[in-house]
Amino acid sequence: MDLEPITLDDIECLAVGAWILGTGGGGSPYLGLLNMRRLYAEGHEVRLMSPFDLADDDRVAVVSNMGAPLVGQERLADSRNIARAVEIQEDYLGRKFRAVMSLEIGGGNGIQPLMAAAHLGLPVVDADTMGRAYPEAQMTSVAVGGLMPYPCALYDPRGIEAVVTKVPDWKWMERASRKICVEMGSIASTCKAPRTGAEVKAWAIHFTVSKAIRIGRRVREAQRRHADPIAAILDEAQGRQLFRGKVVDVARRTTEGFLRGRATIEGLDEDRGSRLEIAFQNEWVVAWKADGGDMAPIAMSPDLICVLDTVTGHAAGTETIRYGMRVTVVALPAPPVFLTPKGLDHVGPRAFGYDLDFKSVFEP
Amino acid sequence: MDLEPITLDDIECLAVGAWILGTGGGGSPYLGLLNMRRLYAEGHEVRLMSPFDLADDDRVAVVSNMGAPLVGQERLADSRNIARAVEIQEDYLGRKFRAVMSLEIGGGNGIQPLMAAAHLGLPVVDADTMGRAYPEAQMTSVAVGGLMPYPCALYDPRGIEAVVTKVPDWKWMERASRKICVEMGSIASTCKAPRTGAEVKAWAIHFTVSKAIRIGRRVREAQRRHADPIAAILDEAQGRQLFRGKVVDVARRTTEGFLRGRATIEGLDEDRGSRLEIAFQNEWVVAWKADGGDMAPIAMSPDLICVLDTVTGHAAGTETIRYGMRVTVVALPAPPVFLTPKGLDHVGPRAFGYDLDFKSVFEP
Repeated sequence: MDLEPITLDDIECLAVGAWILGTGGGGSPYLGLLNMRRLYAEGHEVRLMSPFDLADDDRVAVVSNMGAPLVGQERLADSRNIARAVEIQEDYLGRKFRAVMSLEIGGGNGIQPLMAAAHLGLPVVDADTMGRAYPEAQMTSVAVGGLMPYPCALYDPRGIEAVVTKVPDWKWMERASRKICVEMGSIASTCKAPRTGAEVKAWAIHFTVSKAIRIGRRVREAQRRHADPIAAILDEAQGRQLFRGKVVDVARRTTEGFLRGRATIEGLDEDRGSRLEIAFQNEWVVAWKADGGDMAPIAMSPDLICVLDTVTGHAAGTETIRYGMRVTVVALPAPPVFLTPKGLDHVGPRAFGYDLDFKSVFEP
Repeated sequence: MDLEPITLDDIECLAVGAWILGTGGGGSPYLGLLNMRRLYAEGHEVRLMSPFDLADDDRVAVVSNMGAPLVGQERLADSRNIARAVEIQEDYLGRKFRAVMSLEIGGGNGIQPLMAAAHLGLPVVDADTMGRAYPEAQMTSVAVGGLMPYPCALYDPRGIEAVVTKVPDWKWMERASRKICVEMGSIASTCKAPRTGAEVKAWAIHFTVSKAIRIGRRVREAQRRHADPIAAILDEAQGRQLFRGKVVDVARRTTEGFLRGRATIEGLDEDRGSRLEIAFQNEWVVAWKADGGDMAPIAMSPDLICVLDTVTGHAAGTETIRYGMRVTVVALPAPPVFLTPKGLDHVGPRAFGYDLDFKSVFEP
């Protein structure tokens, strides 16, 4: 079996790439990156494992930081928290995990499994269950696959620990775990329903850790060579540019354990005279454009809507975007599992309350 | 060891007595009583066990229906729910219980352990942790005793199950479990932190099941002999009459998993011309009286404030009291554990947000 060491340079790239794939959510990877720099300085090294090297009955810990991204700017990341969530799950199951995997590769949650892995001496599986970031528990490939939604372990560093041991479906897991998360202060370290190796091979979205690293590496190379990092992202991730402009308004509220709101961007360069509005629930969900007249939707989940700093190519999160930023909005293709009718039930625009038929940016 | 069978007649008496000790809360025992009649008709019989017959390292399941009493009028009692909460706790602990005990002897929660016991074939311990009913997790003798507050198992019959596996203190157990309870619809079947036999002997409030049965028996006897049931209660429980009148107003709201509000009673007979107001949070907490002028507090937690139907002696619950009822308000003495400074911290008037020094009705 091939366990590839992840270098600290890989993690620097991962922090950039995961933030882009986060589509505004998953939380800024910066504090996770600081934790990993410290862990590597202490001698830790994390290894990456192909999902296809898992035995069918291995158990994989699926981890994420759950909650409202804005809160993560006040409650700083500590790598031990996510490791503790995994331990609670192991205690509950009475069984050890073979590896750790990200619930969502997007944002800081692309780094959370590395923090757990460093403390627990486990490899990280090169896969996740979203191929991006999404706000709710049922918005995963494993939920679309109808896999078991429980148990879910939640940890708060003040010493509050809970396990949702059974639910009738994924939406109930979302409801029950969200309320605990809100009471923990709208942020919780979680170890979701464990997955078998067979389930990871059948239903996870594969090779997204290395994909995020590749995207981040292209951005950093472009920065070094004073080339256009946006063009590098579009090339690496086969994306399409939607809009370029200046952020002129952000409305943001932390509510029910989510960060919700809307950002408005005024066009510059080729988009001068136009306006783009993007609604978010932790992540960017739907973008509407107006050229003088009415707003019309031009991009929506499950297509990835990424708001990028026009100069650096770094992602802007829904919690970090602010007035005056020069941004370029791009779309990246969705994982195919979300383009099926069942996938669209879970993550299409109606799943977020927008009465729109999904139309992909990438449809001919 | 002496395991005394509880007869169905005992349970009929328990339903009356527990409702009185509930001080308005714990939920109406009526639906629990119907469940027990059916279980006894099916051949079940529950046995009562002295707390002092427990071995020190026995484990006792402490059960209650948690939530807002008013909701219990819509979501009917099913004896299997509380048994399932005990099973979840056993699964989590990896250990079987020796017996079942009530968290609170008051109201329907005085009958919950009998329902669990019937399904699980376990005896019921003749004790509880409140000697009455109280709304919050930290308002127990075992919390005053500083015993471990976790784990707590919660069950909802739609198939939602959760375990709060660790908390730093009892108030956090209240906060975390309450939010789960609210998401379950403001009612949950719960199996609280398990207690050892040694802990039950040291910190439980003893012989409260048989006390409730005795009080209920005296009421039923008085009713049969057309004697005064209120006088029988005062005699049996060493109580004191506070007020007699007619309910003229009830303000009630179900909020944050509790039933909160205030009832106003206009004096009749010897109290004509006076007015009594009682504030409640699931249970009656503070009573103020006015004789024309300002309201002055005349009774408060931890003294038991019981609102009784003047004719039948049956208790009126905070969810069942209504305009026009003829009631007699009595006080019964508090369990001594709550009269200590630490006890008053947990259940004195300030614990409910009333800035009053505790003064007992029974102080000379």
